Amino acid sequence: MIKNYMEIVVDILLPKVLIHHPNICTCQNCMDDVKALALNHMQPLYVRTKRGEAFNKVKSLSKQFEADVLKELTTAVTIVSSNPKHDEE
Amino acid sequence: MIKNYMEIVVDILLPKVLIHHPNICTCQNCMDDVKALALNHMQPLYVRTKRGEAFNKVKSLSKQFEADVLKELTTAVTIVSSNPKHDEE
Repeated sequence: MIKNYMEIVVDILLPKVLIHHPNICTCQNCMDDVKALALNHMQPLYVRTKRGEAFNKVKSLSKQFEADVLKELTTAVTIVSSNPKHDEE
Repeated sequence: MIKNYMEIVVDILLPKVLIHHPNICTCQNCMDDVKALALNHMQPLYVRTKRGEAFNKVKSLSKQFEADVLKELTTAVTIVSSNPKHDEE
């Protein structure tokens, strides 16, 4: 099985961004839109799940890597919260 | 739920590439390595699964889009088959 590790990093870091945006809609659709928007603007990091685990844990801890992801997530939160599409199927 | 539609496109098109490479190892690890390598070299296309379906079916049919994916898959098959890592966990 393969997995894009950026999905896991985004799941880990999104709460850190939401703390700074207390008034936005956090429904499932809006959160999915934020993650999709952010992931589409980041280099994918697909690995075979087993082999990737160690390498990616180290990578996901580097400050610059985290800062880059936080920046993309903050941009995505700003875009989605200013124009929520949570009623669209 | 979100999904990178490129994963589906790769699954659809990989058999078309394998036909032209009859002698390579097609074990699960090698096929996962091919898909991961190809996906890491392509723009992700994350969507909220429901909304994305129509748009992406159309997109995945465009000849240029298909040609680009086939090219990345062929490169990945060549790289993985020349140096299989299927014994690595």
